[in-house]
Amino acid sequence: MPSDVFTHPWLGGLFGDDRIAELLSAEASLANMLRVEAAFARAQGTAGAIDKDLAEAAASGIAACEIAPPELFTGTARDGVPVPALVELLKARLPEELHAAIHTGLTSQDVVDTALVLTLVPVLAELQSRLTALIEALEALDHRFGARRLMGRTRMQAALPIVASARIAAWRDPLLRHQTRLEELKPRVLVLQLGGAAGDRAAFGEKGPEISASMAAMLELLDSRGSWHTGRDGIAELAGWLSLVSGTLGKIGQDIALMAQQGIDDITLSGGGGSSAMPHKKNPVQAELLVALARFNAVQLSGLHLALNHEQERSGAAWALEWMLLPQMMMATARTLTVGRELCLSVTRLGH
Amino acid sequence: MPSDVFTHPWLGGLFGDDRIAELLSAEASLANMLRVEAAFARAQGTAGAIDKDLAEAAASGIAACEIAPPELFTGTARDGVPVPALVELLKARLPEELHAAIHTGLTSQDVVDTALVLTLVPVLAELQSRLTALIEALEALDHRFGARRLMGRTRMQAALPIVASARIAAWRDPLLRHQTRLEELKPRVLVLQLGGAAGDRAAFGEKGPEISASMAAMLELLDSRGSWHTGRDGIAELAGWLSLVSGTLGKIGQDIALMAQQGIDDITLSGGGGSSAMPHKKNPVQAELLVALARFNAVQLSGLHLALNHEQERSGAAWALEWMLLPQMMMATARTLTVGRELCLSVTRLGH
Amino acid sequence: MPSDVFTHPWLGGLFGDDRIAELLSAEASLANMLRVEAAFARAQGTAGAIDKDLAEAAASGIAACEIAPPELFTGTARDGVPVPALVELLKARLPEELHAAIHTGLTSQDVVDTALVLTLVPVLAELQSRLTALIEALEALDHRFGARRLMGRTRMQAALPIVASARIAAWRDPLLRHQTRLEELKPRVLVLQLGGAAGDRAAFGEKGPEISASMAAMLELLDSRGSWHTGRDGIAELAGWLSLVSGTLGKIGQDIALMAQQGIDDITLSGGGGSSAMPHKKNPVQAELLVALARFNAVQLSGLHLALNHEQERSGAAWALEWMLLPQMMMATARTLTVGRELCLSVTRLGH
Amino acid sequence: MPSDVFTHPWLGGLFGDDRIAELLSAEASLANMLRVEAAFARAQGTAGAIDKDLAEAAASGIAACEIAPPELFTGTARDGVPVPALVELLKARLPEELHAAIHTGLTSQDVVDTALVLTLVPVLAELQSRLTALIEALEALDHRFGARRLMGRTRMQAALPIVASARIAAWRDPLLRHQTRLEELKPRVLVLQLGGAAGDRAAFGEKGPEISASMAAMLELLDSRGSWHTGRDGIAELAGWLSLVSGTLGKIGQDIALMAQQGIDDITLSGGGGSSAMPHKKNPVQAELLVALARFNAVQLSGLHLALNHEQERSGAAWALEWMLLPQMMMATARTLTVGRELCLSVTRLGH
Repeated sequence: MPSDVFTHPWLGGLFGDDRIAELLSAEASLANMLRVEAAFARAQGTAGAIDKDLAEAAASGIAACEIAPPELFTGTARDGVPVPALVELLKARLPEELHAAIHTGLTSQDVVDTALVLTLVPVLAELQSRLTALIEALEALDHRFGARRLMGRTRMQAALPIVASARIAAWRDPLLRHQTRLEELKPRVLVLQLGGAAGDRAAFGEKGPEISASMAAMLELLDSRGSWHTGRDGIAELAGWLSLVSGTLGKIGQDIALMAQQGIDDITLSGGGGSSAMPHKKNPVQAELLVALARFNAVQLSGLHLALNHEQERSGAAWALEWMLLPQMMMATARTLTVGRELCLSVTRLGH
Repeated sequence: MPSDVFTHPWLGGLFGDDRIAELLSAEASLANMLRVEAAFARAQGTAGAIDKDLAEAAASGIAACEIAPPELFTGTARDGVPVPALVELLKARLPEELHAAIHTGLTSQDVVDTALVLTLVPVLAELQSRLTALIEALEALDHRFGARRLMGRTRMQAALPIVASARIAAWRDPLLRHQTRLEELKPRVLVLQLGGAAGDRAAFGEKGPEISASMAAMLELLDSRGSWHTGRDGIAELAGWLSLVSGTLGKIGQDIALMAQQGIDDITLSGGGGSSAMPHKKNPVQAELLVALARFNAVQLSGLHLALNHEQERSGAAWALEWMLLPQMMMATARTLTVGRELCLSVTRLGH
Repeated sequence: MPSDVFTHPWLGGLFGDDRIAELLSAEASLANMLRVEAAFARAQGTAGAIDKDLAEAAASGIAACEIAPPELFTGTARDGVPVPALVELLKARLPEELHAAIHTGLTSQDVVDTALVLTLVPVLAELQSRLTALIEALEALDHRFGARRLMGRTRMQAALPIVASARIAAWRDPLLRHQTRLEELKPRVLVLQLGGAAGDRAAFGEKGPEISASMAAMLELLDSRGSWHTGRDGIAELAGWLSLVSGTLGKIGQDIALMAQQGIDDITLSGGGGSSAMPHKKNPVQAELLVALARFNAVQLSGLHLALNHEQERSGAAWALEWMLLPQMMMATARTLTVGRELCLSVTRLGH
Repeated sequence: MPSDVFTHPWLGGLFGDDRIAELLSAEASLANMLRVEAAFARAQGTAGAIDKDLAEAAASGIAACEIAPPELFTGTARDGVPVPALVELLKARLPEELHAAIHTGLTSQDVVDTALVLTLVPVLAELQSRLTALIEALEALDHRFGARRLMGRTRMQAALPIVASARIAAWRDPLLRHQTRLEELKPRVLVLQLGGAAGDRAAFGEKGPEISASMAAMLELLDSRGSWHTGRDGIAELAGWLSLVSGTLGKIGQDIALMAQQGIDDITLSGGGGSSAMPHKKNPVQAELLVALARFNAVQLSGLHLALNHEQERSGAAWALEWMLLPQMMMATARTLTVGRELCLSVTRLGH
């Protein structure tokens, strides 16, 4: 059924990433949408926009509501977003006296975008920790083999001998910069979305800043002065970062595939893929995979930059394009970090 | 779990396409791989490369083998393709005397690519029939509203009045050309893949042409002189066609979204999506979806052209990139044709 | 001054193509725009829409008008197209009694698009002839070296020995298909553009078909029932073809760069680029260039598919995007064909 | 002759940018390459790697050498880079006793990349100052019209009324973030390239750090521990920033084109482009241009991420792809900032 390789019954073995798939799952997204709705109800109480007990009752009710992802299927088909159906379900399952405290003043985009950001928090933490693990694996590789010799190759031709350490450093140094970039972009991405119908928080009147601050605190996100309904530069920047990371890994994969050629023999890997026709072969499957994932992300990135064109106060078209592209880029980058590290660990010889 | 929108529990309501998802499913792919293995066994018998009864017994055995997609997960993770694991399973489940007739002389790429082509046959037939249905829906629209007036708009500005028929013709005419293009490309795409280990059919000796012709006949595909292991121009051309189709629909969607603006009011649609914040709204969700899908495919297309660079006799990297991109492009184009037609049928007024 | 590599004072040595640059030059475009204006005047006479002598006088006057490209600079800055300024210049330089026969009923897009098509005629002829020359060069290579041995390599690993002929065939076969594709697409691309202000030929009344047929005959283009102002599928298809061609060459270049590696030594090239630091090096500069040009075109292609979304009766944005991308894709493909052939001719040994 | 729109004799009126074209010109690049060669000679003297007087004489000689860009044409065609030809010319024009101090130890990439960075310094300063000017123009717009009413539009449909200030803020806020991003990326981009033949500074021995520090100081660039020959993440990040900026402007352009529609009438612009067929029209040419430039850059960006795959110690293919794409992205972004500001200044009414 899955049309993507990441969750395909067998291609998932090559491309899949259970941990990230779980964080990006419909179940997790739905739970995050409910967290947003609950936090909003509670924040309205805190800000004095509605009665505090009502707010608390609504928030607890929302948090306890059991909704299955497929219940949102028909509504999403109709409305283009799952939130109207979600709000209907909440109201159908919670007592009528709570309805005034449910979603009133919010808009679909506040819920979907903030839920996305709540998803990004653990995803970025996971990527960050894998990035660190990969850097360590490269440092271990350097420790083991860095003093050996390699023929330096420029423009696909033998240039001058180098030490293996030099090539390993070229693999690692960009990763260190990616760590810095991630820290820099987080405050532009991990931000509460709260705008209301037309993005201007008009429904909240002077309570807006207080509701916003309170919601952000509850959800452990950064607060913002206004909404970023059409300000998608954080998302596009994040996509750029994902592709920078996978691009660095793509270079490592390409290098290793080249080093593993018979006649070059600059590296020996344990494992390696078998062939159905040639039992003697050991294919550098993981190295090739890194190249493929890097190209995949480089291609997707232009779509997320196209999605910067969010016309007027909300674009259904640009927003839908984000949904199509960003999760797969996260899957690809996550996989690339794991595969890159495994590939390092599988090196039994590097250089001469 | 699905990281793609096409099979997502709720986004699938917007993006999904059950019929194409079924044709592209792992189950269908696996059945097609088994058809290829069986046809190969039988063709070897027909060509006299192996004993005819042995060939027939192997073919029947392969066809009757029950394998579940997840059984290929671990092997694919290891080998980068599902075929070595598939062959192991076939041999484990079929008597040893048949083993010589199973897969010997084939390579993974023969199996995976021919199975893909077998998948493309019904997918292209389905797209073709939807294309026809869409053209009919546009003709019906023309019949109903073609004589009405619209303000022609160029560069987003009122130009001169036109008849609605003129705009509808601009929507339909490219679709007619896409019908022609599809007929032209089919003989370059619906072609048997048979090359063996290094793509040169060396293992078949002089029996090559006969085996190939026989396999092609059994599978109702076009035969070819040699393999197209690295000749991916047919795949890239098909991807271009998919994006041409969705691009045409994207223009229709953009036009309809513009026509539906209050103040322009050139069209009235029944249905339309609801808003969680503004009960008065009717959003042109399907029109926006067409724009998003067109951009999605335009972006993916460059990846399939990058995958033309299939180095030497087989590139694991370029091939994997195809797997990541082509199924989703088919899903997107299929969806676009259905949504385009539904949108036409939902028009209750066009022009003045 | 040039910001593109194709006409850069020194990078032009690597990327440039004098013949195509001349065909795409502003001078040639301007001459083609004047041809369109003259043919339109004459066709109106032929069709009896205006007095035949007046038509002839206007056509001759237009054809004889000397206009320098920079004279259109300011007008293009203001209007977004060069045609209003061009028409002003024509009227300023030709007697007032001819003015009624100049451009009346045409629109800018008719002139610019038909001039583009007139440019495409010799460009496609040139590409076609280079494609043939390249195929011949590959056949000569096959003749000289086809019987030698190469190690077949799949997934960057030694597979089984093949004859060089097999690899050369994998380079050539897609080119043969590209020849067929070009013939198929020409009737969809080499088509007169004639629509008038809103694309519906309203200004021509019942004379439309006659004017159109007459113009098409004079310009040796295909006639069409209506305009293709927003039907850009022919342009996008052409771009796809350009990228298919350069993609095939990219694979050839990648293979040759891999074959030329020390340790692999499957090919010897005469010439090759020198290094400023390492006098011993001979870099496979042309092979790398083919890889770069293939990627360049694969990337641009998605822009031309985005430009299919030509909203309403004319999109200034989508049209401008075509202008930015298509000429460079033609330059890249043209260059790739020349470099590919030179590379074949520079082979002094292939295989063992 | 120019195949790019930026320097085309008439399209340059629409797309061109004299100031940036000058900074990116071949003359400026050549001057920067000479600055790099001179600084290297001098730095070797400072570091005691060669005699200080010799170093000074060589540096002065290099700086005074008059070389015309076309003199590098033939060498670039042969070598794939201009530097070997440049070094030959320098040696031919300077006395033989200086030759040992010219380029020895450097490699082509050190010269070309550092010259690029020297070009980026004034380009980024120019973009930064235009960004500031654009932000001021938006603030002025807010000051003049911010209190007026607009119909907020979501998903292309009227939502709820907003103040104009809200929409203007959505245009401006991402620009403020782009200012921050530029400051953050500069230290990763404005960095000396010094690696020598294989990128490891081997030729400099222990003098490496001193030569590098001295060169960086002379050229007012950041020093780095090693080379970034294959560490192109700074370039790709810069490209992402360029596309973020043009993407934000694309949204502004799209909004203004939508606001200027008859029937919506949310904005009035002075000027506007004329039509060759319809004298009554005033086309929002600049708004459309912003949309086109944004899409252009979004498309190019994926090419610069593909160019992250710089195999081994130097990739001729990936590097050439950078040369093809980055200058045009800079031109596009520069133009977008100017046009965006002019568009703001041309607003005579916004809102109701």
